[in-house]
Amino acid sequence: MAEEESQNLPVVLVLLPVRILLMFEEQISKKFRLVKSWESSMPTPLFLSTHAQSVRALLCSGRHPITSEILGLLPSLQLIASTSAGLNHLDLSECRQRGIAVANAGTVFSEDGADFAIGLLIDVLRRISASDRFVRGGLWPLKGDYPLGSKLGGKRVGIVGLGNIGSEVAKRVEAFGCSISYNSRKKKPSILFPYYSNVCDLAANSDILIICCALTDQTRHIINKDVMSALGKEGVIINVGRGALIDEKELVRCLVQGEIGGAGLDVFENEPAVPIELFALDNVVLSPHRAVLTPESIWALKELMVANLEAFFSNKPLLSPVKDE
Amino acid sequence: MAEEESQNLPVVLVLLPVRILLMFEEQISKKFRLVKSWESSMPTPLFLSTHAQSVRALLCSGRHPITSEILGLLPSLQLIASTSAGLNHLDLSECRQRGIAVANAGTVFSEDGADFAIGLLIDVLRRISASDRFVRGGLWPLKGDYPLGSKLGGKRVGIVGLGNIGSEVAKRVEAFGCSISYNSRKKKPSILFPYYSNVCDLAANSDILIICCALTDQTRHIINKDVMSALGKEGVIINVGRGALIDEKELVRCLVQGEIGGAGLDVFENEPAVPIELFALDNVVLSPHRAVLTPESIWALKELMVANLEAFFSNKPLLSPVKDE
Repeated sequence: MAEEESQNLPVVLVLLPVRILLMFEEQISKKFRLVKSWESSMPTPLFLSTHAQSVRALLCSGRHPITSEILGLLPSLQLIASTSAGLNHLDLSECRQRGIAVANAGTVFSEDGADFAIGLLIDVLRRISASDRFVRGGLWPLKGDYPLGSKLGGKRVGIVGLGNIGSEVAKRVEAFGCSISYNSRKKKPSILFPYYSNVCDLAANSDILIICCALTDQTRHIINKDVMSALGKEGVIINVGRGALIDEKELVRCLVQGEIGGAGLDVFENEPAVPIELFALDNVVLSPHRAVLTPESIWALKELMVANLEAFFSNKPLLSPVKDE
Repeated sequence: MAEEESQNLPVVLVLLPVRILLMFEEQISKKFRLVKSWESSMPTPLFLSTHAQSVRALLCSGRHPITSEILGLLPSLQLIASTSAGLNHLDLSECRQRGIAVANAGTVFSEDGADFAIGLLIDVLRRISASDRFVRGGLWPLKGDYPLGSKLGGKRVGIVGLGNIGSEVAKRVEAFGCSISYNSRKKKPSILFPYYSNVCDLAANSDILIICCALTDQTRHIINKDVMSALGKEGVIINVGRGALIDEKELVRCLVQGEIGGAGLDVFENEPAVPIELFALDNVVLSPHRAVLTPESIWALKELMVANLEAFFSNKPLLSPVKDE
């Protein structure tokens, strides 16, 4: 495309590299003029003030905090398109006050996230990663039978956060013959599964907790010592939400001391740091924050983000708007 | 129980230790007088001829070949209760000729086997065991993002053997948004999934093959070089049936040379020997023949075996008879 043509495209600000841009830049830059802060030698505040008047839309990932300071430097901003499902990196109250619309990943990641949660769950219960280590270590001929895991069917699954991912999790665990109950901010009128307003009560009535809620000030450390006690010695925790939803120190203590039965963890409080105490445990499955990502979901995300930006610039409704609650 | 009372119980012959007997002997021996060949100092043929007239029922596991020689020494035998689902250890044609009834594990293992197949499948596609190795090896902070796996939803799953386990597999993969087709000896009139009479055709129209048929002379090496070629470079094979259903040498070659995409294997041709070439591969998940076993399924198996033996000795229909086909 000629430089001149590109100049007429709608401007999209990007502060730091975003995966879909790295993978599909050629395609995306045919539709938008990408203003990339990290490619400039200017300090970010200076760079932002240079573009302050022209920038109406910002594309970011969940790894980039968009603070009130940044928002303050962008008086014309009307849209933040975030490639994440979670929104804890955005100053949402500032957006609300300023009338800045927010689009997120919507349901793009829900199926992958749910698939991964079920994969972690079967893995922990049936000891798949641990028995893979056993076989690869050459121990089968030496030690004979590997200890049995535990049956999934009939287990009581408590879902913390029955949003997009949680609903997909529910659909899947039903097919395995598990019973389901859930916790969320509010009871969902259309859902027939038993609702617990208190996570401790949910844990006390569950064999397995699957954590897939958003991280907010209200949900930080929602899985604390009391919840783990209520879940009990045989209980299993699966986390595909955010690391800080769990009091990680307490989780490590409970796992090491056998106060809960096991855990499948895709997320951690201080990624990429993972508590090394977990490395020695066979009742734990660890994964490097990959639950929602597949090539298929990243493609779908790119399509969705482009569609949101196009809708915004042609004054049409966003495809995956974040609604005020 | 007094020795005398025990003498009046119906006799059940056991040639080699059976798991349910090791776990629940006290309970089972209240109902039957267990005649245990392995506890005798006599050679087996002599031991069998000693009990030849009194033995009407035999309890065995899938690990114990019951050959025509053994059957020849047991002229009064009328029932074999096998704790396995597969029957490749029994001389079935001899049983048929002699009118010896056979009871097997029926559907006791179906749910666990299907759960495990799905666990292996998600693990291979989404690289769970491999990423667990990555995290435990401390590589996340050093190497950054782990390579992405592949989405389960939308994949074409071919089920080889739509019996008890295969049907449970189908129920589960449907919940993940996969399409299903199958191969079995005959098309099943009540099943709407597309049927392929030829495994190669099934493979050519599938992204994933899940092997859960019985091992017979007809199914030995049913997954051969041609089937793997038809499945192709991205294709994934899951085996929770028997090792010899796959031409293992060819499988190893295809995996090492990248001619298929990955495999999740619970069973092997020469267990507990596993081809060491597999130990170095990250697209493979290995498990020591544990798919169908959980404490829950073993308990259910014990109940079923006792119920079959009780039915036999009171001339009632067996609960899980193996029917001639």
